[in-house]
Amino acid sequence: MFDRNVKLDFFVENGWLVNVLTGEVLENRGIGILGTKICFLEEGKEHVGGKTCVIDASDKYVVPGFIDGHIHVESSFLSLSEFARIAVLHGTTSVFVDPHEIGNVLGVRGVKLMVNESRNLPLKVFFEIPSCVPSTRELETSGAEITIKDVKNLLKKEEFIGLAEVMDVQGVLNEEKEVLGKILAAKKERKIVEGHAPGLRGKDLSKYVFLGVESDHESISGEEAVLKLRMGMWVEVREGSVMKNMENILKFLLEKKVSLERCMFVCDDRDIKDLFESGYLDHVLRRGVKLGLDPIESISMVTIHPAARFKLDHVIGSISPGRYADLVILKNLKDFEVETVLANGELVVFKRKLLLNYRVPKYPKWALETVKVKKKLYPQDFQVLSPSNEEEVGVHVIKVSEGEAYTEKVIKKLEVSEKIVLGNPEEDIAYAGVIERHGKTGDMGKGFVKGFNLHKGALATSIAHDSHNIIVIGTNLMDMASAANKIIEMNGGMAVSVEGKVTASVELKLAGLMSLDPYEKLYGKLTALLDKVKVTGCTMKNPFTVMSFLSLPVIPELRLTNKGLVDVNESKIISLFV
Amino acid sequence: MFDRNVKLDFFVENGWLVNVLTGEVLENRGIGILGTKICFLEEGKEHVGGKTCVIDASDKYVVPGFIDGHIHVESSFLSLSEFARIAVLHGTTSVFVDPHEIGNVLGVRGVKLMVNESRNLPLKVFFEIPSCVPSTRELETSGAEITIKDVKNLLKKEEFIGLAEVMDVQGVLNEEKEVLGKILAAKKERKIVEGHAPGLRGKDLSKYVFLGVESDHESISGEEAVLKLRMGMWVEVREGSVMKNMENILKFLLEKKVSLERCMFVCDDRDIKDLFESGYLDHVLRRGVKLGLDPIESISMVTIHPAARFKLDHVIGSISPGRYADLVILKNLKDFEVETVLANGELVVFKRKLLLNYRVPKYPKWALETVKVKKKLYPQDFQVLSPSNEEEVGVHVIKVSEGEAYTEKVIKKLEVSEKIVLGNPEEDIAYAGVIERHGKTGDMGKGFVKGFNLHKGALATSIAHDSHNIIVIGTNLMDMASAANKIIEMNGGMAVSVEGKVTASVELKLAGLMSLDPYEKLYGKLTALLDKVKVTGCTMKNPFTVMSFLSLPVIPELRLTNKGLVDVNESKIISLFV
Repeated sequence: MFDRNVKLDFFVENGWLVNVLTGEVLENRGIGILGTKICFLEEGKEHVGGKTCVIDASDKYVVPGFIDGHIHVESSFLSLSEFARIAVLHGTTSVFVDPHEIGNVLGVRGVKLMVNESRNLPLKVFFEIPSCVPSTRELETSGAEITIKDVKNLLKKEEFIGLAEVMDVQGVLNEEKEVLGKILAAKKERKIVEGHAPGLRGKDLSKYVFLGVESDHESISGEEAVLKLRMGMWVEVREGSVMKNMENILKFLLEKKVSLERCMFVCDDRDIKDLFESGYLDHVLRRGVKLGLDPIESISMVTIHPAARFKLDHVIGSISPGRYADLVILKNLKDFEVETVLANGELVVFKRKLLLNYRVPKYPKWALETVKVKKKLYPQDFQVLSPSNEEEVGVHVIKVSEGEAYTEKVIKKLEVSEKIVLGNPEEDIAYAGVIERHGKTGDMGKGFVKGFNLHKGALATSIAHDSHNIIVIGTNLMDMASAANKIIEMNGGMAVSVEGKVTASVELKLAGLMSLDPYEKLYGKLTALLDKVKVTGCTMKNPFTVMSFLSLPVIPELRLTNKGLVDVNESKIISLFV
Repeated sequence: MFDRNVKLDFFVENGWLVNVLTGEVLENRGIGILGTKICFLEEGKEHVGGKTCVIDASDKYVVPGFIDGHIHVESSFLSLSEFARIAVLHGTTSVFVDPHEIGNVLGVRGVKLMVNESRNLPLKVFFEIPSCVPSTRELETSGAEITIKDVKNLLKKEEFIGLAEVMDVQGVLNEEKEVLGKILAAKKERKIVEGHAPGLRGKDLSKYVFLGVESDHESISGEEAVLKLRMGMWVEVREGSVMKNMENILKFLLEKKVSLERCMFVCDDRDIKDLFESGYLDHVLRRGVKLGLDPIESISMVTIHPAARFKLDHVIGSISPGRYADLVILKNLKDFEVETVLANGELVVFKRKLLLNYRVPKYPKWALETVKVKKKLYPQDFQVLSPSNEEEVGVHVIKVSEGEAYTEKVIKKLEVSEKIVLGNPEEDIAYAGVIERHGKTGDMGKGFVKGFNLHKGALATSIAHDSHNIIVIGTNLMDMASAANKIIEMNGGMAVSVEGKVTASVELKLAGLMSLDPYEKLYGKLTALLDKVKVTGCTMKNPFTVMSFLSLPVIPELRLTNKGLVDVNESKIISLFV
């Protein structure tokens, strides 16, 4: 393998090497790459042969490829392959994914489809097994289930590194047999267990950690993060498209001089708009440094720290022999402009140009026909009928706010006309409906939402965490039916309908969650869609993202699923009417 | 398990808690212990019941139990159980052992014996599988072999965490099938691989790491340590009985401000004398702080760092829920006087008093009858016959120096009388013999040594790294036979003979390496032995330790095994005569 005459595939010379293992920035005396791995450090010039690609990093900085320790690829709206293309463009060479979105639609089969797709990508994709599919049983209808038996089987497979975020915190605290069984199964295979514990403190936090959960990305304040660190958790500091917790947490930790050794930066979710316009972990690094973090420490937060957390520091996270040849050449350690990237020993970005081309994907039919609503929808399907004969009726309305994870339960009096409860655009109260689309129940939950500021039209999406049914909101039932039917016709996506016609849409055909388009094209389509949304009067940056959380029956206070209105604190379906 | 009414086994309150995860020293708001684990941190007072043992740590510091990341228990001369007693007395609650000494004498059977002995000890013993038994084949005769098949089988067992120090560096660099096979087998089981690479640099170091070796404890200088850190190795900074590298390494790393995140303190070996007189990892902590290391950093070097290296930070290395209840209460963070220790949730030391009693050990006969020299030895058995008829003959002499790992090959002219080559006490040239004692060849290698400063008598020991045959050195053959026969009679140990009589001896009956005595008693016996040694004129602190390396055919320059004189650099047996 390594004989005297071996010729390297790549040799990176000159410039400055950031060694995250020692915290040093040293003159780069050479990095020799053979196949997918780094074989020489500070050595190897004599193994440069005629076919060796020599990369000159003069005046630049060579750092390890970036690692996202927690990401839901589906939330980019891109296929994994396209996500990989844009990820490497921004210096990310490894990601740790919880595929619970595709898992909720297509079950184990969907997860395996994604694993297969990852096989020939230069981006390293480490898969966890979704632990909470479905996320609730009685409150919504999911597309599939991933059972404890599935979890145990998948844990035995090399492709899976452990159990994905254990969102069923109450289940853990109640020591429920199934969820504990999944955790124990992961421990038995000596694999990791990721967590999800927003706001958890005190004895509950002790217990959650005691029972085996090792990390958390849900902290929104520095105090919360420090508490979890003390309790033994790895803290994944989240800076994504929806949730941006870095500023709060980092400022606090830096001020209190808390060790960052067991912290890392993660995104959790990052949509195509943010990926395209701002970047990925390169953007996160910029943020970190702007908030006062030392550049080397910042880089460590997306390299050696996640590598250590996942017990993979012998293969990723640093530039040293035996590790995968994942390198990023940066212009400087302030702007973190990614110039050149090697991923798995493959040159994927050179002088800021992405060398990976889009490939027309081939997915099986069952993955592309996941919107199983049998019949066309009509406006009257969305009607809410009043239980009484009064002219007015008190109704629970879901109040949303962009950037806010929580929703508020507010009570409003709405007019009733011929038994039909009417929305009120002037008071920003729109109709809402959630249509079961997995071919199981065919039912629809109906309600009202406030906060979207719609004056006309309707919006629909098939991305609705976690069970991904179809969510529709609108000022009138005709546009709602129009938008919903478009989703059904496309087999998933987002759409806006105004005055009875769909004015813009984005097809998300893979599981009804992800596009088959190249990322550049999808970005254009999404931008056009969001532009057309403005006509409705909505001033949100992206109302589809806010809508996608409307159905999530685990974050308080009030949500809407295909089964109806959910009071999250009580964990039950409640009446729409007061 | 954790119901509302659960009553704790221990509750540690008050004082200061050192949280190695955050680097903070905080008011201890309570540590709740249930069974072998920590269940509450900063909580739990209400779970104190009638039977809860409440420990008041007022004005004291509570730190995690200490971890030795690399130790050969046999080098203490104590049985594992006795080693455990003195280890916990000094705050050590976990050790990572390479049992290659007992492995070289008794093979897999001996290793399993030690594993079984570890089962009910409060000290956590993590076993690695010896990778190099025997350490050489043609150059010496070992008691046993641990084959690649053995290694593969043992790797599948829960009790073994990985492959012990890969000492066959040349084998790795030559890509020899067997040694690479052992490393690959460890990787396949997702287990660790320890290293041993004294002086390795450049491409050889790259290659050694590339092929899978993850750590090293052989660095003797700061430059060597930094180089290995950059190359991706975990650096185990050794401060033991024989080798003391901490000062060199630490001073350099602190001065150059190199990150210590991938460093830890280990002992490698620590004999009963040092354990009894100075301590164990408590002593190492004191040294670290004296050399300028921050106390919290020092503590981290024997807690969370080794825990992280061995990928066990979710169960040891910090005071947090889910970890084993391994706690040390110290008077202060300067003297590191260990006052109270909990190990595995058991109170083992209280107010400086060891609560674990000596238990008369029960070992099988095959483990206690390992010196299989069939016949009594006579002075003439040790005679060295000259090949020529000259009155003088040129001879290769092994020159030793206490504290020095290397030996020197020197050439001396020695007198010959009636064909017998004579030693020369006035020039400090003593006779030496290595007697095969495993019942395999029955041969003896003979030679001469310089540096022991013996004027009379002889010393013998059955601890002779790594094959543990019997080494004898002396000024006359009568005392050599006398000392050697004592070793045989005892079934292993150390002895001094003067004027034909054994004046002191220590029996080491377990594998011919370890005592069955309580540690306090063994300390007394060893002290008495070393006292009696002075009569011989030897001024070394412990000549038996120096003798124990005389046979080690892997450290240059010249050694003596049962097969004869070994030129280590040439890796072959050479003639005694020039």
